[in-house]
Amino acid sequence: MIRDLADDEARRALRLKWGTIPEGVLPAWVAEMDYAVAEPITEALHRAIDDGVTGYPRFEHGGELGAAYSRFARRHFGHAVDPDLVLPTVDVTAGVRLALDVLSEPGPMVMPVPAYSPQLAIAEITGRERVDLVVDPDAARAGIDLDRLDRLFRDGARTLLLTQPHNPWGRVFSREELEGVRDVLTRHGGRVVSDEIHAPLVLPGAEHTPYLSLDGTADHAVAVVAASKAFNIAGLKCAQVVCGDEATRDRLWRVPMARNDSWSSLGVVGSVAAYEYGDPWLAALLERLDSQRSLLADLLAEHLPDARMRPLEATYLAWLDLRAYGHDDPAAVCLEKGRVQLSAGADYAPGLDGHVRLNIATSPDRLTEIVRRMALAL
Amino acid sequence: MIRDLADDEARRALRLKWGTIPEGVLPAWVAEMDYAVAEPITEALHRAIDDGVTGYPRFEHGGELGAAYSRFARRHFGHAVDPDLVLPTVDVTAGVRLALDVLSEPGPMVMPVPAYSPQLAIAEITGRERVDLVVDPDAARAGIDLDRLDRLFRDGARTLLLTQPHNPWGRVFSREELEGVRDVLTRHGGRVVSDEIHAPLVLPGAEHTPYLSLDGTADHAVAVVAASKAFNIAGLKCAQVVCGDEATRDRLWRVPMARNDSWSSLGVVGSVAAYEYGDPWLAALLERLDSQRSLLADLLAEHLPDARMRPLEATYLAWLDLRAYGHDDPAAVCLEKGRVQLSAGADYAPGLDGHVRLNIATSPDRLTEIVRRMALAL
Ligand SMILES: Cc1ncc(COP(=O)(O)O)c(C=O)c1O
Ligand SMILES: Cc1ncc(COP(=O)(O)O)c(C=O)c1O
Repeated sequence: MIRDLADDEARRALRLKWGTIPEGVLPAWVAEMDYAVAEPITEALHRAIDDGVTGYPRFEHGGELGAAYSRFARRHFGHAVDPDLVLPTVDVTAGVRLALDVLSEPGPMVMPVPAYSPQLAIAEITGRERVDLVVDPDAARAGIDLDRLDRLFRDGARTLLLTQPHNPWGRVFSREELEGVRDVLTRHGGRVVSDEIHAPLVLPGAEHTPYLSLDGTADHAVAVVAASKAFNIAGLKCAQVVCGDEATRDRLWRVPMARNDSWSSLGVVGSVAAYEYGDPWLAALLERLDSQRSLLADLLAEHLPDARMRPLEATYLAWLDLRAYGHDDPAAVCLEKGRVQLSAGADYAPGLDGHVRLNIATSPDRLTEIVRRMALAL
Repeated sequence: MIRDLADDEARRALRLKWGTIPEGVLPAWVAEMDYAVAEPITEALHRAIDDGVTGYPRFEHGGELGAAYSRFARRHFGHAVDPDLVLPTVDVTAGVRLALDVLSEPGPMVMPVPAYSPQLAIAEITGRERVDLVVDPDAARAGIDLDRLDRLFRDGARTLLLTQPHNPWGRVFSREELEGVRDVLTRHGGRVVSDEIHAPLVLPGAEHTPYLSLDGTADHAVAVVAASKAFNIAGLKCAQVVCGDEATRDRLWRVPMARNDSWSSLGVVGSVAAYEYGDPWLAALLERLDSQRSLLADLLAEHLPDARMRPLEATYLAWLDLRAYGHDDPAAVCLEKGRVQLSAGADYAPGLDGHVRLNIATSPDRLTEIVRRMALAL
């Protein structure tokens, strides 16, 4: 069911991941998968184009998109979401920005770091100070230090940008960890924006707990979700903000249109198809990613035994500590000497040397070649 | 070549214009056309979906989108645009916001009013004061009063949001008028954001002059353009910011991604197809709109002789002064008693009574029925 794209297909399909790097370089950077899009999605898109669905989408919350997400959340996370509390937005980062602009007090925003790099700028864009909660690269397991979180809020922070499952940590937070976060936040009356774009990509062995499924979070949190990462449709441009209560939904919905009216009609079509009819493909995908994860562990053990890989509990983005190989910027070395395009660790954690993020969502052959080339380069 | 959508087709295709109003109501409100999308566009979209182009678009300025727009601007406006000075953005309003955020000083923004309603909020969203340059509803011809513009800039305004061709005035500004604007702006060192989304929709008898085609505008202006209005693809979500010089382009390009990375891949595909292969369809469209314009004049003369219609030089949006019929909100009356959905004039000019905006981009039969119903209602 998961069809690997051949190189020429991938170059045609993935205009950023494959289309902007030199020929001969193997891409393992931006979070896109070298797999063909699920058929229910392409069918729905073809049908929509035949129907001429190129004009503005319905300007509504809830609707078929809210209903589709709500059913998906119930099936996959056991979470009951009121469809009418689901708002469309163009993409996840725009949804995070919207939530910060509209809901959060102007005080500092806490950002667990390493973090998804484009969002490192989001505090500044919304006129806030960013305070980093930096994970010790030597910690046994990446986690949110609740004492430090508490201190940051005591010192004036007003919002936590939570990413869960986490990119690039690869972590799925346990219910207990999230309850700890919630307790800090409620103690200080802070807000949470929970970026859960990777929730459908939880791999065997872990389980996703939506932050809003915890008691006592409805009035201080929104989640930003999308079918885009799990179904390889980030270019269709449709994400969703899930609110915990009507008051929050109304605050977000009543903003001037120019703040939030940019989601695409085909994005709605693709997302609804993914949520409603994508389960079999998603199940096959998780199997594939599970085996890619094992393959990566084997390959590292063989070719890069001093690489330290954090447990990959979700996403297809492995966070590798390559400090043992003595390069400040191993991604640059791998590109130059190995012709592999990785993501540089310092993009996610400013000032951190020796780390890379490696995208495993490709064929076993390509992943093997990627690690082989990395080993030669390092 | 222009194919009218039947009612059921229109309801499937135009999810906002037709899909959000009660059955039996005739829609003549939001700026979308009841015509099938041009074939080169649907073909390109089908091909892109077969190719799997659902991932992120290339993150680049210029490129095939810049080249396609540049060729279009040369053919249609005789304007030489350096393709590399063309940046993608998700939609026109987002492009306006981006330009204000990044390029404009924080001082007040001048807004000629009536204005495209969602943009009435854009000054506030970017943290600016909005100062309105209100057109006298009794003026013989809507225009920008240069003396008042000069006074507003003398009093501290820093940016003009120009819309040209103008919605809802229906005006195409002459080269002389635009030169007058330019002279005021250069005198005060102000900035212009020129929303030229309607430029391809200039009707026979008028000619569009891109603001950036005037001497001495390159360093103080950007234009925001799109294929979206003219080709009925606003839901695909891709617009372009055209810069006058590299310095401006670089300032816009170097912003954090989270400020401008939301355009869709299929929007790029649709826009390139429209710009490169859409000329024959566009020519047919302008003929059709020209005849709809004449039809409207005839219908008004017959059924609503006291309606005052401003000359419609561009767009398919007629601005009607219905004050003679004595209703504060004639759009509400037409909806209730006539089952026609118009746009209320007060949405475009806060506080202005007795005006409506009527969308003529439909079949002759529907337009006839719309005016007949309006006459009965009023
Ligand atoms: C945590 C996280 N949030 C957001 C995004 C991007 O989402 P979007 O393109 O919808 O802004 C990514 C992309 O990889 C991500 O990892
Ligand atoms: C002058 C003007 N600008 C912008 C827009 C909307 O463009 P977008 O949907 O790309 O923001 C319209 C829509 O009718 C318009 O008339």
